[in-house]
Amino acid sequence: MNKVNAALIQQRMHADYETNLRYSLEEIQTAANSGADLIVLCELHSHLYFCQEESTQYFSYAQSVPGPLTERLAAAAKSNNVIIVSTVFEKRTEGLYHNTAVVFDKDGSIAGIYRKMHIPDDPGYYEKYYFTSGDLGFNPIETSIGKLGVMVCWDQWFPEGARLMALAGAQILIYPSAIGWDPRDSSEEKNRQLHAWQTIQQSHAIANNLPLICTNRVGHEQDPSNQSAGINFWGQSFITDTMGKIVSQASSDEPETIQAAIDLTESEQTRQLWPYLRDRRIDAYGNITKRFIDET
Amino acid sequence: MNKVNAALIQQRMHADYETNLRYSLEEIQTAANSGADLIVLCELHSHLYFCQEESTQYFSYAQSVPGPLTERLAAAAKSNNVIIVSTVFEKRTEGLYHNTAVVFDKDGSIAGIYRKMHIPDDPGYYEKYYFTSGDLGFNPIETSIGKLGVMVCWDQWFPEGARLMALAGAQILIYPSAIGWDPRDSSEEKNRQLHAWQTIQQSHAIANNLPLICTNRVGHEQDPSNQSAGINFWGQSFITDTMGKIVSQASSDEPETIQAAIDLTESEQTRQLWPYLRDRRIDAYGNITKRFIDET
Repeated sequence: MNKVNAALIQQRMHADYETNLRYSLEEIQTAANSGADLIVLCELHSHLYFCQEESTQYFSYAQSVPGPLTERLAAAAKSNNVIIVSTVFEKRTEGLYHNTAVVFDKDGSIAGIYRKMHIPDDPGYYEKYYFTSGDLGFNPIETSIGKLGVMVCWDQWFPEGARLMALAGAQILIYPSAIGWDPRDSSEEKNRQLHAWQTIQQSHAIANNLPLICTNRVGHEQDPSNQSAGINFWGQSFITDTMGKIVSQASSDEPETIQAAIDLTESEQTRQLWPYLRDRRIDAYGNITKRFIDET
Repeated sequence: MNKVNAALIQQRMHADYETNLRYSLEEIQTAANSGADLIVLCELHSHLYFCQEESTQYFSYAQSVPGPLTERLAAAAKSNNVIIVSTVFEKRTEGLYHNTAVVFDKDGSIAGIYRKMHIPDDPGYYEKYYFTSGDLGFNPIETSIGKLGVMVCWDQWFPEGARLMALAGAQILIYPSAIGWDPRDSSEEKNRQLHAWQTIQQSHAIANNLPLICTNRVGHEQDPSNQSAGINFWGQSFITDTMGKIVSQASSDEPETIQAAIDLTESEQTRQLWPYLRDRRIDAYGNITKRFIDET
């Protein structure tokens, strides 16, 4: 199968879990009806972004995988005959939680999971409090439409993750995200951040000659602790080709489901024209596994 | 020293070595007179881009390092009291040649050299015929204004090189380049290539929170073998800040020397806001040194 009709669901989250999930499921059905075979949800698409504060109350949101949320999504994958990329606040055991992508194949089975490897921690994004770093490495998830290099949000800033996914055979890079602006920042600063976020992901497509899908949530979410002015999630979810060109992009302020055709044979053509994999200096990259190359 | 006045010389090359060198030296003097302390020349700035064909005649262009070319540049560095980043077709011994960046400190001494690690080979860019891959690794060159992460052209497509330079303490990423369009390509294809080239380099600035300088030659150069329509070197040399934003850019069709102030303290501020170095999963990056992660 060489053509993939990819859709992404850029979603505005609400306080009510059921409302969020129902919206996701409706959009999945609509996208499937218009021919999508791969549908990517935002990061942690069932909840407001609770990582704006550190509070034990939110651990009650976590679910096992498989669990109630994955069952609903599995049923949607099966009934709509689509691949779904979701993320779940995973409860692995009592006191051990991950930010986990779960991929469902068209038959409703779980094709694989990926546990977010790079965990951020910044004012407003207190993820290290909630999520233990993933321990499954950068392994593409094999599905009936191809190998998906699924990572999650903060991973998108690290070229190493994208490269490892590509080396392991990923055919599409996929980043469900939750990123936004501090409303108090200047519009110059906001543009700087948005530009950096797009650019770094486009670069993974370029460096690895792979198409890329990035979903983001949209809309303002208040900080329940009132420490900050909340987050304006900037939407602008996008899909690129194998040269990092954005072929489809959602709006900055509205929920939107967008679609693009991805030709999986394009990567090989691009790699023949831009043969980076041929020329990597693997004899000289060993120090990438160092924290810092200190002189002493 | 926290402020660096960086200049880059975007140059149109001619058949005559002396003409090219004289232009470089004049522009170095002019830039130094307007306050530059770091001046970056294009890749192989003394010659037409001879790699458009494979012919033994061009090996006569190669020089030892130190040698006649580096002596001229060393004198320019000293008399103008500037750092110069140059590249030389290096003859290391009979039959062994490199594409080598040579950095001169303000006193005219050679601060260090870097031998291009990734060597391209594509129609019109037959570099593997001329240059052996570098064997010095990705080591920043220490100068009186800071540590320079100097790489060369094709290196710019590989995130690993930029990362290794950053981990070894580079404070500025620098890529002398020679890249252009096949005049027969459509303007859409040309834009795609230019966009990818800018984006991948901006991404190295972003991923490593470092400023970046990229010089390119400009103008049409004929293919002496008449196999192709030659190359339209696209100029558009640029300087970015530590978030990958282009702060200064040269034209697409004219020689031009541009300048920008770089504040070396900005990297630390950016790293505190975007702490990628804190979160790299060095325990999980080992496979970066593999050619491909085969399943068997």
